[in-house]
Amino acid sequence: MEKFKDLKSSFEAFITSHLPKIAPRELYEPYHYIVNLEAKRVRPVMLLATKRCFAPLGEDDFYAALAIELFHNFSLMHDDIMDKSETRRGQATVHKKYGDNSAILSGDALLILSYKLLENIANKVHFLSIYSLYNKTATEICIGQQLDMNFESEVLVSEPEYLMMIEHKTAVLLATSMKIGAILGDANSTDCDAFYKFGLAIGMAFQIQDDLLDTFGETASVGKRIGGDICNNKKTLLHIYALQNAHKTHKELLLQWSQTNEFNEMKISEITQIFIDSGAKDYVIRKRDLYYQEALKSIEFASISREDKDYLIKFAQKAVDRIK
Amino acid sequence: MEKFKDLKSSFEAFITSHLPKIAPRELYEPYHYIVNLEAKRVRPVMLLATKRCFAPLGEDDFYAALAIELFHNFSLMHDDIMDKSETRRGQATVHKKYGDNSAILSGDALLILSYKLLENIANKVHFLSIYSLYNKTATEICIGQQLDMNFESEVLVSEPEYLMMIEHKTAVLLATSMKIGAILGDANSTDCDAFYKFGLAIGMAFQIQDDLLDTFGETASVGKRIGGDICNNKKTLLHIYALQNAHKTHKELLLQWSQTNEFNEMKISEITQIFIDSGAKDYVIRKRDLYYQEALKSIEFASISREDKDYLIKFAQKAVDRIK
Repeated sequence: MEKFKDLKSSFEAFITSHLPKIAPRELYEPYHYIVNLEAKRVRPVMLLATKRCFAPLGEDDFYAALAIELFHNFSLMHDDIMDKSETRRGQATVHKKYGDNSAILSGDALLILSYKLLENIANKVHFLSIYSLYNKTATEICIGQQLDMNFESEVLVSEPEYLMMIEHKTAVLLATSMKIGAILGDANSTDCDAFYKFGLAIGMAFQIQDDLLDTFGETASVGKRIGGDICNNKKTLLHIYALQNAHKTHKELLLQWSQTNEFNEMKISEITQIFIDSGAKDYVIRKRDLYYQEALKSIEFASISREDKDYLIKFAQKAVDRIK
Repeated sequence: MEKFKDLKSSFEAFITSHLPKIAPRELYEPYHYIVNLEAKRVRPVMLLATKRCFAPLGEDDFYAALAIELFHNFSLMHDDIMDKSETRRGQATVHKKYGDNSAILSGDALLILSYKLLENIANKVHFLSIYSLYNKTATEICIGQQLDMNFESEVLVSEPEYLMMIEHKTAVLLATSMKIGAILGDANSTDCDAFYKFGLAIGMAFQIQDDLLDTFGETASVGKRIGGDICNNKKTLLHIYALQNAHKTHKELLLQWSQTNEFNEMKISEITQIFIDSGAKDYVIRKRDLYYQEALKSIEFASISREDKDYLIKFAQKAVDRIK
């Protein structure tokens, strides 16, 4: 649709012209590096698309979108240190390339910069409302990362615990991006909530798909080595379901494998098979699709046109499925 | 003076009643630990005292003061990881006690919490003005920490470079605290600037005194092992002056010692002696006192009473000298 055209490329152009260089070089190079990696820009594009359902885009919208994208990149930088991840978007992670100290400090600078960009929202009524939502969400994302780290040392994680973790760690930021778009479009509070719920459900589907791709995807399209979650004994929904529903021998095998955490091809292939045989893969696909359905329902009564809804749904579906 | 009485104890009470616990425990325990260590609370008390020169204190002032104190503690948590410091205020640093990951994430949560507390400033004109100053200062503090880290791998750091580093890393937060107090007191912009300059000069004197105490202080009152800067080859003003002005043999000795960086009593005693013999100690004391004089001048024309000025000066002097 014409009015949603080029949102991503306009946003990329805005990054290029508005991402400041906080001197010295050692401070800005790491965050320029990560922000400029090729990325889907799902959150800022969803923010802009939501706003565009209500009114034409202006500078305030792009500043808010950039703030969100920088916040997201800040959290990736710090999470990658904590998770000892070596690649991100097919490239070296910041701490791998520049060292832990740079990733800590440049990440801090990026978080502060994201707050600083919010200053540029000229409509101060919008700003105040966005600011409060922003702080709430930022806190929730820290909670999500903490829960995720806690799960590492827990053998049994329940499905509700897992869902709560991904909601905090991933889904709330997409939900917030869309609600910010609605706030900037002067949407009424019912619509603001509808967009939040839509983003939240899409975010859940997105993360569940992410877990599926980590085991069942292909390195080339996923941008990271397949089987990472299995090797690291991540308590994904696949793992949680399999541990509850696999045959006794398979359960024991799962628990045995969780004693090691180096990269191991045999571990990956055995556990992948257990995920299939136990019905975990099918269950997780169904779960993903349920969230997707929930998203469709959330947006159904929003006071925007049918065409706009369809665009948002289609865009969200592509994002979940990782179709370019 | 009656009106400045109990600022610190009122602030401590405010911390106790207003420092939230962001669940899970692993997230809030580390920041509760550091915030509750015995501390002088120089920044929040200076903020409150400045406001008190203009008007009685209210909730807005305490929220702003708490935000500043939390920001300060966030930066300590992350700096201590980067600097590999093991003790802080006589106790284990957060990363030493809880691990690097906890110090990173709990620090992030603390920074976000400090932004969240600013939301509580009910006067939104004040809030907007404070918010913009806050972001600017937070960025400068990151720059200061980066410069400090850069100095580690540089042999020759000049005095202006050093002064710029401590201005960013330390002085701007005290300056900002006082300017926020003035903003909350509806001071005119000349007065706001006067308080900023006062805080900046006091902050410089404070940091220079900190460097002096690290070499010439006593463990019991300083709360950390004496000689840490010397062992870590910190480019303090003492080091910079001595390297430029000591006898040739002493300069060579300084450069030789900088090849090692473990704890070494002989290194400490030899370099301490060089700092005395080269006149570095005397020079640095004079430099500290010049900043102190500059502070006095800055506040002289502020439109507050003589008594109020004298209180602020006395409080600042005590803070610089570390007198309880």
